[in-house]
Amino acid sequence: MPEPRSELERIGAIVRALPRGEGVIVGPGDDAAVLRPADGMDLVVTTDAFVENVHWCDGLLPPEGIGRRLAAANLSDIAAMGALPRWATIARAAPDGADETFLRAIELACAEALAGQGAAIVGGNLVACEGPASFTVTLIGEVERGAALTRSGAREGDALAVTGTPGRAAAVLALALASLPPSLARVPPELAAWYAAPTCRVRAARAMAATGGVHAAIDISDGLSGDLLHLADASDVGARIEVDLFANDPQFALFASKAPNSWAQGPSDDYELLLAIDPARFEACRAAAAAAGAPLTRIGEVLSRSAGQMVRGVDGKDRPLSVRGYDHYA
Amino acid sequence: MPEPRSELERIGAIVRALPRGEGVIVGPGDDAAVLRPADGMDLVVTTDAFVENVHWCDGLLPPEGIGRRLAAANLSDIAAMGALPRWATIARAAPDGADETFLRAIELACAEALAGQGAAIVGGNLVACEGPASFTVTLIGEVERGAALTRSGAREGDALAVTGTPGRAAAVLALALASLPPSLARVPPELAAWYAAPTCRVRAARAMAATGGVHAAIDISDGLSGDLLHLADASDVGARIEVDLFANDPQFALFASKAPNSWAQGPSDDYELLLAIDPARFEACRAAAAAAGAPLTRIGEVLSRSAGQMVRGVDGKDRPLSVRGYDHYA
Repeated sequence: MPEPRSELERIGAIVRALPRGEGVIVGPGDDAAVLRPADGMDLVVTTDAFVENVHWCDGLLPPEGIGRRLAAANLSDIAAMGALPRWATIARAAPDGADETFLRAIELACAEALAGQGAAIVGGNLVACEGPASFTVTLIGEVERGAALTRSGAREGDALAVTGTPGRAAAVLALALASLPPSLARVPPELAAWYAAPTCRVRAARAMAATGGVHAAIDISDGLSGDLLHLADASDVGARIEVDLFANDPQFALFASKAPNSWAQGPSDDYELLLAIDPARFEACRAAAAAAGAPLTRIGEVLSRSAGQMVRGVDGKDRPLSVRGYDHYA
Repeated sequence: MPEPRSELERIGAIVRALPRGEGVIVGPGDDAAVLRPADGMDLVVTTDAFVENVHWCDGLLPPEGIGRRLAAANLSDIAAMGALPRWATIARAAPDGADETFLRAIELACAEALAGQGAAIVGGNLVACEGPASFTVTLIGEVERGAALTRSGAREGDALAVTGTPGRAAAVLALALASLPPSLARVPPELAAWYAAPTCRVRAARAMAATGGVHAAIDISDGLSGDLLHLADASDVGARIEVDLFANDPQFALFASKAPNSWAQGPSDDYELLLAIDPARFEACRAAAAAAGAPLTRIGEVLSRSAGQMVRGVDGKDRPLSVRGYDHYA
């Protein structure tokens, strides 16, 4: 595979392999892409980067897995807003002599995963650098005007619920990093496959939002506890999660040796959502999510601000929820 | 200045220093920004990255200059589309222990320069990495539906014109890099000041587009010759530029020791535009650009495809225009 001598050569190869996105008036190859939003829609915009030796390392994941996880990180933010992914840019920095085949496979897998959720690559950037390779994706979505889900709408009495199984990614990584060199070989195949192609909650979030029951939503890839605190702060509410609501979930068997409370506190790149849901519509939300392939588990409730934020342990005692999410400099 | 422990802390500090942008429904701090485009507008999207030791190096520019140039690189792409800058994200990768004051000053200057052209920072990303620091900006603009300027509209007989003085940035860098360590001290103050705060052609491009005379436009920060070839290819036309049309410009005195042809061929991060203009409206375009602060110089004309692309030297002879623009891996 030839080295990309230009941005256009590189992005063109990605784009030719995939369907042209809707609303793309001018795709890659001009100074900027030209896009036509649908009438009556708001835009949502997020950006996430993956850096070599931080978000991926030699031998752990094939490039396709890295690309899919890069897409998932961005898609999860759009899902948390209840929006539809539409258009993306992908910027690459890599040293001269980097493995072009490997980097190209990351980009193509990322583009394919985005396309699978309705988003087209419409531009990019290419720079040579001295350090580790990195990719920065900016993803633009659309949502009906005024209907974006935010972190700030939770109300006292709302049910707190999570999609999927937060903590899985942390478990996979812990198992993989226990090998030298790190390897997914000791990770159960089903979990390893999921890690390399994480679930996407765009459809589930749209379906839940359509019930009218979702008051607030947040992506919890930085950690359930930390992101719950973010949601509570933004909504000016208290909250309590109860570990025994999820501790007996069979999917948590992997965590049996850890206190569920420590699981709940840990950062884990699962790309799942935490939602505050009108309790009267919780079952409707659960059914809508299930129809879209997402298990929805009630893990607690929204309290008044003065009640604070806490976690109720298996011993029935409430403890302050004060843990941090992922700290990029920790 | 404290280290940013979170993306929100860092972006919040930038945003609080500047006016909230128009159409920003939800700014930084949620999973994604929520933006409301004006009715009847298309979006334009571009992304550009600056990497330490590639786009900036120790001692050459203060952080404010780096930030303004980062903004200019993105603004120039939006200008080339005839669009208005509206919203931007800024992603940072930097090693632990990097000079936070320096990095923060880059970001703030970038945000200020964007704000000066109507664009607000609405989100970002923060990752720790092992290598050099880098910033990736994605800039979204708006343009009246169907009115974006592209590279593909040039027609035989069009005048070719450039804004400003392409080649200045290359001259500044050549002078600065002749010192060890590199320094702007030997660069004429006016040029050094311009380099640290490059001109922005957004207003001029909008004014020229409003005359109806602009058939095609391209940002020439990768090099006039290479970008002229891009425009000619996209428009399926030939072209001839004539070095004696610009060789006597007093602003080119710095280049006196170089053949004008080699100047014309070189990459130079000037953030200027090359335009193909209806000759009947060239004077209207020149007047509109001048009123918006941009000198517009006619440097050649668009030919039929079969005529090829060439440069006419001071000797009156035509030579093929075959040079490359900036090659990131050269």
